[in-house]
Amino acid sequence: MPMRNLAMRLRYEGSRYHGWQTQKNDISVQQTLEEALEKVCGHKVKAVGCGRTDAGVHALRYCANFRTDCPIPVERLPLAVNSRLPGDIAVERAVEAGESFNAIGSCIKKEYIYKILNRDIRDPFLEKRVCFYPQKLDITLMKRAAAAFEGTHDFRAVRSVGTETRTTVRTVHWCRVEKEGDLITVSVCADGFLYNMCRAIVGTLVYASYGKLRPEDIPALLEKGDRRLTGPTMPPQGLYLNRVWYEGQVGEMFSRM
Amino acid sequence: MPMRNLAMRLRYEGSRYHGWQTQKNDISVQQTLEEALEKVCGHKVKAVGCGRTDAGVHALRYCANFRTDCPIPVERLPLAVNSRLPGDIAVERAVEAGESFNAIGSCIKKEYIYKILNRDIRDPFLEKRVCFYPQKLDITLMKRAAAAFEGTHDFRAVRSVGTETRTTVRTVHWCRVEKEGDLITVSVCADGFLYNMCRAIVGTLVYASYGKLRPEDIPALLEKGDRRLTGPTMPPQGLYLNRVWYEGQVGEMFSRM
Repeated sequence: MPMRNLAMRLRYEGSRYHGWQTQKNDISVQQTLEEALEKVCGHKVKAVGCGRTDAGVHALRYCANFRTDCPIPVERLPLAVNSRLPGDIAVERAVEAGESFNAIGSCIKKEYIYKILNRDIRDPFLEKRVCFYPQKLDITLMKRAAAAFEGTHDFRAVRSVGTETRTTVRTVHWCRVEKEGDLITVSVCADGFLYNMCRAIVGTLVYASYGKLRPEDIPALLEKGDRRLTGPTMPPQGLYLNRVWYEGQVGEMFSRM
Repeated sequence: MPMRNLAMRLRYEGSRYHGWQTQKNDISVQQTLEEALEKVCGHKVKAVGCGRTDAGVHALRYCANFRTDCPIPVERLPLAVNSRLPGDIAVERAVEAGESFNAIGSCIKKEYIYKILNRDIRDPFLEKRVCFYPQKLDITLMKRAAAAFEGTHDFRAVRSVGTETRTTVRTVHWCRVEKEGDLITVSVCADGFLYNMCRAIVGTLVYASYGKLRPEDIPALLEKGDRRLTGPTMPPQGLYLNRVWYEGQVGEMFSRM
């Protein structure tokens, strides 16, 4: 059997995990998945993910690929792997990817969403799945602040130090705020994200919401590039990787909801 | 301060708990709530719940009452108690109840719902919150079987041995099956429930769905009263106490969704 490059669409509830990436002393989604794949394929597997997610962050659609010479039909891979995975991770689909496909390198853009439960009383069913924020937020101010993040900018003002990167310039395709009942959802789609960028953007929208900064000041804050002048990094449990975009077959796997 | 009788509307995600009722060696919702109330009221508290729920069963709306002579304004009780409760239990509202009110004795009827995720691939976000059932279920047969449980019957054929009860006759006000996408929801409203009755009814609908018994046989099965002839007790994680009905002020607290 020649070497195959298989791409998978995953979904995981991240509260038990120390993020995607394998850690020395903590359980990660990557390691958990690689162990399940090893049982299915009969050899050690190295899975490449479409990005790091932090501890407690979730993924509604995540892409990972791995190489194998095992002959399992690709359409049978999801059930085979799921039966060896814990219930908080699921492989939803799998396809044969081109030889050069790489879940992180081939990714065109990604969308994260951030969920805020904005009311007095928390919801026990959303405990590890939203940021519970009892102080009343102003959705109009948040929307105006969000628009200021759209476009191509240097985003080092909303970046936590941690990961090396060639450049801190990114293109945010959209940054939107929606409210349904007590649930506020911020969606940020970009060609790439700096470390903690999405959570710091949301923290800045929250600051704008209660007047700690004005939406019209955001361009100047981005210009200055000083992390201390923007809003706080919001807690991880409200953050979800929602969508990823690719060319070709892998792209199709993510185009259906 | 004279003795007050306070009724609360609770919501809890039951996966960490060994049910409502205090157990010797396991954590229960009742004990967790009583400990939080004790901190707020400054004395030992005995909470009366509207019914036992089993380990892993959830409650969207649950009623509990307790007696206290502490002067806390009733409208401030929810936030005060929530700040001393873990995130998977919340007090949503509280009212002064009449002296004779008792969460279980005063309850007119209750509705449980049971959720089944009926598709190939499980959902990591519903792991402990639905019964994942990959075998295709026939909703038409389930609906026909459900109708057979409505009315006043002796329900000992769908009762697990465990709790003593005066009579095994109950009135089921409705037993309905609905499907939305891959999610099947069974709602059962009755004046009272025998031990495991709802989960055994759902197990019987599942049996009817794949021809292990016929909907038209259910009246005779109820008549016979033999637990071995009906369907299995479904697992607890799909079960939610959804609504409870009372007279007066407490009733109003539960009439809003």
